[in-house]
Amino acid sequence: MKEITLKEFDGYKYIYGGVCAARGFRAGGVYAGIKKPANDDPNATHKNDLGMIQSDVLCNAAAVYTQNKVKGAPIVVTKQNLAATGGKARAVIVNSKNANTCNADGEQKAQRMCELTAKALGCKPQEVIVASTGVIGQILPIEPIEKAMPMLVMSLCVSNNDAAAEAIMTTDTFPKQVAVEFELDGKACHLGGMAKGSGMIHPNMATTLNFITTDCAVSSEMLQKALSDVVKITYNCLSIDGDQSTNDMVALMSSGMAENDEITAEGADYDTFKQALYIVMMNLTRMLAKDGEGATKLIECTVAGAKDDDTAKVIAKSVICSSLFKAAVFGEDANWGRILCAVGYAEADFDITQVDVSIGSEYAMIEVCKNGAGVEFSEEEAAKALSRDEIYVQISVGNGDGNATAWGCDLTYDYVKINGDYRT
Amino acid sequence: MKEITLKEFDGYKYIYGGVCAARGFRAGGVYAGIKKPANDDPNATHKNDLGMIQSDVLCNAAAVYTQNKVKGAPIVVTKQNLAATGGKARAVIVNSKNANTCNADGEQKAQRMCELTAKALGCKPQEVIVASTGVIGQILPIEPIEKAMPMLVMSLCVSNNDAAAEAIMTTDTFPKQVAVEFELDGKACHLGGMAKGSGMIHPNMATTLNFITTDCAVSSEMLQKALSDVVKITYNCLSIDGDQSTNDMVALMSSGMAENDEITAEGADYDTFKQALYIVMMNLTRMLAKDGEGATKLIECTVAGAKDDDTAKVIAKSVICSSLFKAAVFGEDANWGRILCAVGYAEADFDITQVDVSIGSEYAMIEVCKNGAGVEFSEEEAAKALSRDEIYVQISVGNGDGNATAWGCDLTYDYVKINGDYRT
Repeated sequence: MKEITLKEFDGYKYIYGGVCAARGFRAGGVYAGIKKPANDDPNATHKNDLGMIQSDVLCNAAAVYTQNKVKGAPIVVTKQNLAATGGKARAVIVNSKNANTCNADGEQKAQRMCELTAKALGCKPQEVIVASTGVIGQILPIEPIEKAMPMLVMSLCVSNNDAAAEAIMTTDTFPKQVAVEFELDGKACHLGGMAKGSGMIHPNMATTLNFITTDCAVSSEMLQKALSDVVKITYNCLSIDGDQSTNDMVALMSSGMAENDEITAEGADYDTFKQALYIVMMNLTRMLAKDGEGATKLIECTVAGAKDDDTAKVIAKSVICSSLFKAAVFGEDANWGRILCAVGYAEADFDITQVDVSIGSEYAMIEVCKNGAGVEFSEEEAAKALSRDEIYVQISVGNGDGNATAWGCDLTYDYVKINGDYRT
Repeated sequence: MKEITLKEFDGYKYIYGGVCAARGFRAGGVYAGIKKPANDDPNATHKNDLGMIQSDVLCNAAAVYTQNKVKGAPIVVTKQNLAATGGKARAVIVNSKNANTCNADGEQKAQRMCELTAKALGCKPQEVIVASTGVIGQILPIEPIEKAMPMLVMSLCVSNNDAAAEAIMTTDTFPKQVAVEFELDGKACHLGGMAKGSGMIHPNMATTLNFITTDCAVSSEMLQKALSDVVKITYNCLSIDGDQSTNDMVALMSSGMAENDEITAEGADYDTFKQALYIVMMNLTRMLAKDGEGATKLIECTVAGAKDDDTAKVIAKSVICSSLFKAAVFGEDANWGRILCAVGYAEADFDITQVDVSIGSEYAMIEVCKNGAGVEFSEEEAAKALSRDEIYVQISVGNGDGNATAWGCDLTYDYVKINGDYRT
């Protein structure tokens, strides 16, 4: 697994367990065979393609979805379900290998997945969150899911967050999970999540598939508010390839089993909870960036001194999305002109003659541009810094209070290779 | 040289000569040594890096420029010059290998290039259009240009449009030139141009470096109007990599030596001239797409049935810009779900359930999606069509009158390779 730097935050402790870290949640995953393997070698091992998260109690729940006009059928069904229950959920069912998108029978199949789950777990179909990821425009075979359901439910018994995290992977090279422990009203609370990458990632209002569970008691309304706010400064500041998926969804469920006083309004408790959500989502964002398709390096771009946060965000995302800069990072070439070029075409209001740029690693930042013009720097030091696998770009655009961070990755031969023959 | 399909238009004949096809224009190019070669092999051959276009008479002139906030110094100086003369020009001086951008002494150097040209040709510095392309943020050495000036002026004597076209190339694999002949008032008129690619191309109001000459008599005002209109449906519908350059410029000069009645207003003559400009710029656009960095295939995406042309253009450009679709074209994979995904995230107003998509070559178009959902098609036929090197995508989004075409190229290993070590 690629190493990732987890940043420390006072009062929050990183723990194991992913979506099972919070009390009341179990998870599991199995290989259902949703896509026929290329050859029928009976000894072949298969990665999981069907996952489930179950809560012991009915949870408060919230979600955000892709803004793509083409929406996967599971998105439509999950929206309907959460509306029907007024923001309550008991379980998540999710498959990889097929997005169930652009199919005439898509909604029917997504509903069938909810029914199968409800029957197996003894809840209502409307209490199920359903999600799919994989190839667009191929009919989803429902038989493998039906057949795998007993084994999937059995897999919940060992509460295996790793099996579930594997089941949502597509071109990911490692499963992505983070969990934290924090305290509210003297009670230990837990919040953890899992996410899948790693291509078609350029979120708007949500990204990719992402499931977060907590035992911290929070109303559905405040869950939605926190999720909508945090997604703006985490996933929505991530771009792997500029392509916004049809199946993006982030779902957040609270079992309330930490037994803190339920958070129903803004205030100190809400802020503590929201910070936990930020820590988990920010770290998952960094993992998604680091594991971008074909990526060898994480790029973190911070913009400060803008007139407001939105301006800073537009500039940071412009840099993260530049194919030319991404290719230069792959080549470990301190070609800062491409950073300035991307800053220059960002649709934002700032003075280009005030722009300073530094580039490097967490060990050494090197100033390459001051007031919009190049400054002398040691190419040797820059090459050394760029040989690291987490690359930082710091940009200052003036004296304003606005700042933002965006995350991306380098553009490599392997991105092209992976996407030249994804369907085969 | 990569083959490119030239489309036929009644009343217009393709001719040789590029920027020298129109009467009154000479061009030339030399190797000045603006960038030191990596080794000093005395037998090494060098591609030209300094070019010139000269007119025998003072021309009416017009130009459009990059909208990037970071503007190359030559852009600033050319703007000033055309404003000072009220849209008149005698010559173009242009170098590759160095963009003269983000340098403290940039404008001074660009002005010096105008002075050197004016002195050599016997005109005013303000009558010179200056342009540079290459690496951003490195000081432009002026000595090689000073030394090369006598040889450059001598090279004009043989009126060598090929030498000039070579001088503006950066990562281009072939020079890009088109010229046409047409008739006005019984007089033969000529219009020709040259352009450079092939990366950092995502134009907005202009693209890359592009020089067009004509002997058709047109006022500066009408030159500007035609250029601004035509650039919208040609270069501004082109994307290689989503990166908008700092040094984009299209300059258009008219010697008037065809002796037609000068075009000073809209009407039939203006339309005839504007169509010639469209043919040349559209073909140069296709050449730029085909020669995109690392590209193996041209992609032409046509959108019809939109509520207006702008809506169609947003959708067509969204498809052309999708890294995932571009990689699929490289892999000759009919992964139409990625087309629909890109259509879906286009910020435009249309009904996704009305969307039909066909993909193929000029020999065979294959319907892959009807009313927003997949239809059965022969993968074998699709693979055969996608093995061609000019790929067409036809999208219908409804019954409106709006349509547009956009051009791009596939995303390949070589794009990454070229841009991983561009500076070295």
